[in-house]
Amino acid sequence: MTSTLSVFTDSPARNLVCRGCGATFPLAAQHACYECFGPLEVGYDTEALARVTREQIEAGPKNIWRYAPLLPVGVDPATRVTLDPGLTPLVRADGLGRELGFTAPLYVKDDSANPTHSFKDRVVSVALTAAKALGFTRYSCASTGNLANSVAAHAARAGVPSTVFIPADLEPGKIVMTAVYGGEVVAIEGSYDEVNRLCSELTETDEFEDTAFVNVNVRPFYAEGSKTLGYEVAEQLGWRIPAQVVIPMASGELLTKIDKAFAELVEIGLVPPSEWKVFGAQSAGCNPIATALHDGRDDIIPVKPTGIAKSLNIGDPAAGVYALESVRRTGGWMEYVDDDEIRAGIQLLARTTGVYAETAGGVTTAVLKKLVESGRLDPNAETVVFNTGDGLKTLDAVADRVGPTHRVKPSLKSAREAGLLG
Amino acid sequence: MTSTLSVFTDSPARNLVCRGCGATFPLAAQHACYECFGPLEVGYDTEALARVTREQIEAGPKNIWRYAPLLPVGVDPATRVTLDPGLTPLVRADGLGRELGFTAPLYVKDDSANPTHSFKDRVVSVALTAAKALGFTRYSCASTGNLANSVAAHAARAGVPSTVFIPADLEPGKIVMTAVYGGEVVAIEGSYDEVNRLCSELTETDEFEDTAFVNVNVRPFYAEGSKTLGYEVAEQLGWRIPAQVVIPMASGELLTKIDKAFAELVEIGLVPPSEWKVFGAQSAGCNPIATALHDGRDDIIPVKPTGIAKSLNIGDPAAGVYALESVRRTGGWMEYVDDDEIRAGIQLLARTTGVYAETAGGVTTAVLKKLVESGRLDPNAETVVFNTGDGLKTLDAVADRVGPTHRVKPSLKSAREAGLLG
Repeated sequence: MTSTLSVFTDSPARNLVCRGCGATFPLAAQHACYECFGPLEVGYDTEALARVTREQIEAGPKNIWRYAPLLPVGVDPATRVTLDPGLTPLVRADGLGRELGFTAPLYVKDDSANPTHSFKDRVVSVALTAAKALGFTRYSCASTGNLANSVAAHAARAGVPSTVFIPADLEPGKIVMTAVYGGEVVAIEGSYDEVNRLCSELTETDEFEDTAFVNVNVRPFYAEGSKTLGYEVAEQLGWRIPAQVVIPMASGELLTKIDKAFAELVEIGLVPPSEWKVFGAQSAGCNPIATALHDGRDDIIPVKPTGIAKSLNIGDPAAGVYALESVRRTGGWMEYVDDDEIRAGIQLLARTTGVYAETAGGVTTAVLKKLVESGRLDPNAETVVFNTGDGLKTLDAVADRVGPTHRVKPSLKSAREAGLLG
Repeated sequence: MTSTLSVFTDSPARNLVCRGCGATFPLAAQHACYECFGPLEVGYDTEALARVTREQIEAGPKNIWRYAPLLPVGVDPATRVTLDPGLTPLVRADGLGRELGFTAPLYVKDDSANPTHSFKDRVVSVALTAAKALGFTRYSCASTGNLANSVAAHAARAGVPSTVFIPADLEPGKIVMTAVYGGEVVAIEGSYDEVNRLCSELTETDEFEDTAFVNVNVRPFYAEGSKTLGYEVAEQLGWRIPAQVVIPMASGELLTKIDKAFAELVEIGLVPPSEWKVFGAQSAGCNPIATALHDGRDDIIPVKPTGIAKSLNIGDPAAGVYALESVRRTGGWMEYVDDDEIRAGIQLLARTTGVYAETAGGVTTAVLKKLVESGRLDPNAETVVFNTGDGLKTLDAVADRVGPTHRVKPSLKSAREAGLLG
């Protein structure tokens, strides 16, 4: 492993900080605190961050690396392991807003536009750039599908071997899209939580010593990639923070990092101070974080996930308590929706915005609807909903609900008989 | 219908010109010459085009509309019917280049990054912006799949009714992705060419008088959208034209429009003059244009398409003769590949670049390989290969060729038995 000193010379990152006890450690491939076993996150030189300007960012590349001065790695383009994700569309969702009774602007941040069609390209690009700098020579992950797609594609582009771990019962599209890149794909006969546990054990073996598991042993760097979603939304709104955001929760990390990105932007003066509320979305089949909020608890009771929103099916969410903290601090809320609501959510979003989301996006859209109906979310305040994945990866979710409206022979006569000509 | 005079006031477009006899007509919803029945294309005020500067384009939005001053419609953002496609990645394909013996840079222009994941979003945005200006109130198309996805999504975003026509035997992903947007989807028991013929007939009926069929009655505008692929490649290379381009052919229109875009850029002084060679790619199951070239003929003999590259399965290609002309004039060539080569092409591209293409991209990659091996394409000259669609829409093409490399239980013991631990 390369010394951390040289690797992070250009970076505003200074150390790893325990989210539990606050202990600090040098920047390295470490993800848990040696003191309290709490999760680590990247700490920054705030003076270095404060020197970053809007102009500097706007002059950068049209992808996440425009925010490299706010990330732990990637300032030098030659060091990046990346598909250049990011700067995905912030779509004005007027049609959806009308259906839900919004008077304020409603937006969908559509991360299905990333190279492998999910937000995971952001975290993988940051994690693997760190992994390369730290000397790892094989790329890996424990995945519910999207992450495996992204790691395998990044490895293919970089010409580095990959070995990814997925539950054997994933959607076919996600399995094919992982295997097509030619790396090793290990199907595990178990839940995502079991896949994750196995990967944690593998990082301790000699055979996987040189392997970066993006969401295990380089997780602190990985998690920072999610901040770019928050930065982009703020920049795309003209450098300000929306009043309300609705974010899907699996581990809960994405929600906490978007919140962190907003706080950073205020702290370093890139946006004016403002208040924002963070809302979390889960499925009824896997709702441990939302349930803790509803029950007024501070701890997360793990569940055994079920239901169609497989990309959110993390029963033991690593950042759940931090997601609770974000939502409580900002005055937001969390909701969950069942499989039928998820399917309807996919259709509602597609029909009103032209964005075809995977099940996670159906969860978020259905939760948005529920939050408006219950009065928890204010339709008179500017709102951004995050779509993190692509409907083509979860075709089965709606395949029996949509299809051709007419079936005719190729003749005007047949078209007339089918009622197409009045 | 609105008068054409007011609609096109801001536009550099001046008229419609017959590609056959050169007759000119006012800008309107007309696609065939009243004199000779030849296809029409948009003619421009070349002085207006020549006033466009690189700086003006670079200051524009991060999508196709940065080129609005070179398009027939869309200068005023309020007039656009669009998902804001374009500015897709130009990927350095070093790994692919190494495998094929390239010494010069090889790039993949990856249009799967568009909102509905194919290059069709470009042509639909231009066609529907024209359609709205011309007063049409319903959107339609004859489609092999990608076009239907795009028209249905554009209509959903715009809140306009849509009725799209597809062959009933399309890939399931393309059918679901069309129907999910909530418009009418008419499945035709016949080939694409029969679907297309029916749509031509429908445009003449009272019931479809207010309907814009993007690739029929507003086709001249539609076709211009493809020019943006050529503009983008030139801009992304630092305002110059690559020596060789490899382009998939269905109707042949895309190839001719990329060639036209390059010629326009030279003519108006946005790039230095240079020579380029245009190469066309078809599948063995539908190769009428390539066969005409190989046989030294000027006419295209229609075929009945077969094979897995359904998005290219146009047996009677409308722009075939113009594609022949482009390829002959520039000193390029055309090739075709069979279904096994297409599958291998998808895998080769994915494995070496991290780009997962649909069957059309497999065709183009396999044809690139064939052209290098036969000496027709020079691996010592800079080359751009166009990927026009997304592998997630044609999963079946490789589903039986790729999959998990290992299947294990969630334990170190099982991982060891599977050989993952040496």
